[in-house]
Amino acid sequence: MAVGPFSAVKYHPIAGFQLGTTAAGIKTPGRQDLVVMQAQAGSSMAGVFTANAFCAAPVHLCRRHLLDDSPLALVINTGNANAGTGAAGDADALTSCNELALALNLKSSQVLPFSTGVIGEKLPIDKIVKSLPTAIEALDINGWQEAALGILTTDTRAKGASVQVEHLGQTISLTGIAKGSGMIRPNMATMLAFVATDVQCSPTLTQDLLNQAVNQSFNRITVDGDMSTNDSCMLIATGASDLCLDEDSTLVAKFSQALTQLMQQLAHAIVRDGEGATKFISVEVEGGANSEECLQVAYAIAHSPLIKTAMFASDPNWGRILAAVGYSGVPNLDVNILTIHLGDSLLVDAGACAHSYTEAAGQKVMDEEEITIRVDLKRGDTKETVWTTDLSYDYVKINADYRS
Amino acid sequence: MAVGPFSAVKYHPIAGFQLGTTAAGIKTPGRQDLVVMQAQAGSSMAGVFTANAFCAAPVHLCRRHLLDDSPLALVINTGNANAGTGAAGDADALTSCNELALALNLKSSQVLPFSTGVIGEKLPIDKIVKSLPTAIEALDINGWQEAALGILTTDTRAKGASVQVEHLGQTISLTGIAKGSGMIRPNMATMLAFVATDVQCSPTLTQDLLNQAVNQSFNRITVDGDMSTNDSCMLIATGASDLCLDEDSTLVAKFSQALTQLMQQLAHAIVRDGEGATKFISVEVEGGANSEECLQVAYAIAHSPLIKTAMFASDPNWGRILAAVGYSGVPNLDVNILTIHLGDSLLVDAGACAHSYTEAAGQKVMDEEEITIRVDLKRGDTKETVWTTDLSYDYVKINADYRS
Repeated sequence: MAVGPFSAVKYHPIAGFQLGTTAAGIKTPGRQDLVVMQAQAGSSMAGVFTANAFCAAPVHLCRRHLLDDSPLALVINTGNANAGTGAAGDADALTSCNELALALNLKSSQVLPFSTGVIGEKLPIDKIVKSLPTAIEALDINGWQEAALGILTTDTRAKGASVQVEHLGQTISLTGIAKGSGMIRPNMATMLAFVATDVQCSPTLTQDLLNQAVNQSFNRITVDGDMSTNDSCMLIATGASDLCLDEDSTLVAKFSQALTQLMQQLAHAIVRDGEGATKFISVEVEGGANSEECLQVAYAIAHSPLIKTAMFASDPNWGRILAAVGYSGVPNLDVNILTIHLGDSLLVDAGACAHSYTEAAGQKVMDEEEITIRVDLKRGDTKETVWTTDLSYDYVKINADYRS
Repeated sequence: MAVGPFSAVKYHPIAGFQLGTTAAGIKTPGRQDLVVMQAQAGSSMAGVFTANAFCAAPVHLCRRHLLDDSPLALVINTGNANAGTGAAGDADALTSCNELALALNLKSSQVLPFSTGVIGEKLPIDKIVKSLPTAIEALDINGWQEAALGILTTDTRAKGASVQVEHLGQTISLTGIAKGSGMIRPNMATMLAFVATDVQCSPTLTQDLLNQAVNQSFNRITVDGDMSTNDSCMLIATGASDLCLDEDSTLVAKFSQALTQLMQQLAHAIVRDGEGATKFISVEVEGGANSEECLQVAYAIAHSPLIKTAMFASDPNWGRILAAVGYSGVPNLDVNILTIHLGDSLLVDAGACAHSYTEAAGQKVMDEEEITIRVDLKRGDTKETVWTTDLSYDYVKINADYRS
């Protein structure tokens, strides 16, 4: 179950970037669960990682290898997060880098490892090592679809996006895949995302552009407010195109917009596939004095189990929205001037239910699969949007049953 | 459904304090839903109220009347929260004070109003006014049990506690009732609590003692992390006893301890009756540098839907606990020295699952109705405890169906 129809993605291949997927039997025998990605020499790689203090072994190693070297290969497994595994986990992550480096004639520090799945169980590194040759053999510029499936955990469908940007008669491509459906919160989600482009771009600018795009996409979604130990988002610029970002500010603007939109598509796909999700909810907070207070209000709404259960029930229980705005913690909030809209219906005005509001109008909005809650704080010009889901029986079922 | 057996409370009557309950038909015809309480002349009253910016009309009025006068009567209705009701709500709350004051020969500012129930619907003030005489007629020093039932909303059982303190051959009594089962979070819950004692105590000291006790009880419980618009906790000292707190620091210490324990009993009763609760969970965080960071970690655990669903499933999914500690936001947290215990079993040590831990030991703890999670940060001497519940199918059911 996911919110909205699934539409197959037309993946534009990225020159200089290949993906290979295989079944290593990490958790479920026969399931595609091991992905290798390789970028051509000279590619730039940038990463954004979880802020969780208990970050997983592969995250530690990714950070170090990106600092020490210019990585060109990635090894990704699902079925096991290699998190909370202590020194053994570090050794296993390093082994996967060593083995892939050996096979691809790279240094170990040129390989980045990624793991997702159950926390706290030992990574079956032998199975991974044994299956690496098959994954390498499968490396293909058109390997995106298989890789998109090969990184999933509790996801009910693959998540991909691909766009092209025209500039000075030439075309650059951006293609990305992502996984994630639960334990999704800002900064960031239990999510992995890999986006590649053929544009030329220095490592520093690649990192800047990734940071900006993550901040407007993966850092604006939440399903249950939990933050994973393994979240990672990568941007790889192979430089196979003749176009170069570093010398062309017009192209930077175009590219940045395309990248943000692509990453928002991936982020929205994660929310739509949120565990047990039946609604896709946009929480827009405008009229804020700054970004921070807009986000405070937006997350108070997006994290409220009472609002999320009301959304599941298609119940326009605006009192719960009003209460969440009230406890968001914004200093000196004037509840008598702010307004709250449910879809296009004015819901709250002058500290109370708006006179013009009718239950019928509210019900009409709530019966839709896609719902927008809009709060206008009327104290500034800043706006922020956060995307989330409802809270359903199935959320409880999926998360109560996950390990069994 | 609630966690643990229900045991009937032996309510010690409080000299100088009477309670009367009746059925006003506010939401459900025939249901006891209107309570009047009256304290004798000279009583001290103190209150602690919600921090929600959208606080309800009665909360505004309570704050003003406590500031302007020395209140002696309370009027409490269930079935309607009189919140988000704007100017009409303010007028309705004031009318209930006016009418009760008239009947009891008090000033309107000597009456405090309390409402709980659905947010945003007009208070049926006519029904309340019409039923006040019956409630006043019912005023009785032994009216606690009826009042405990008359203030409930989605609660599945009445919540009361009563203790006596011996001092210098004399006895003082403390008796309290509370309501609340969902929308319960620190600072404070959708909860009402009324505690009365016969001790003599100045208004200032009454307020100080209430603040301290609330901070160790109602401000340490959470069910779903939402914060209500109506939360109120009152302490009334009638002074009918010969003992006086203001002149006896030994008695203050004894009384304060008894009050805190009584309010913890009421707070725990609220958690045990948490919406859909099947577990009573104590989250103890010790070894903190200060109270704030202990509470950050404790609430990260207590608010995590992933941990709460795992608890519902009796699944010792320690990885989720570790992840929550990791994202709690405590600066410079050293995940390699902290330890996490599940009951008496050491779960996490040196950044990973403890070698001595077995699934069987974890499962044994999880199979109990009462579960303790203990985190030792090993960076100081501060300890804080927070109490919460699991997250069950029934939580979703109750909150998805509430208004229908």
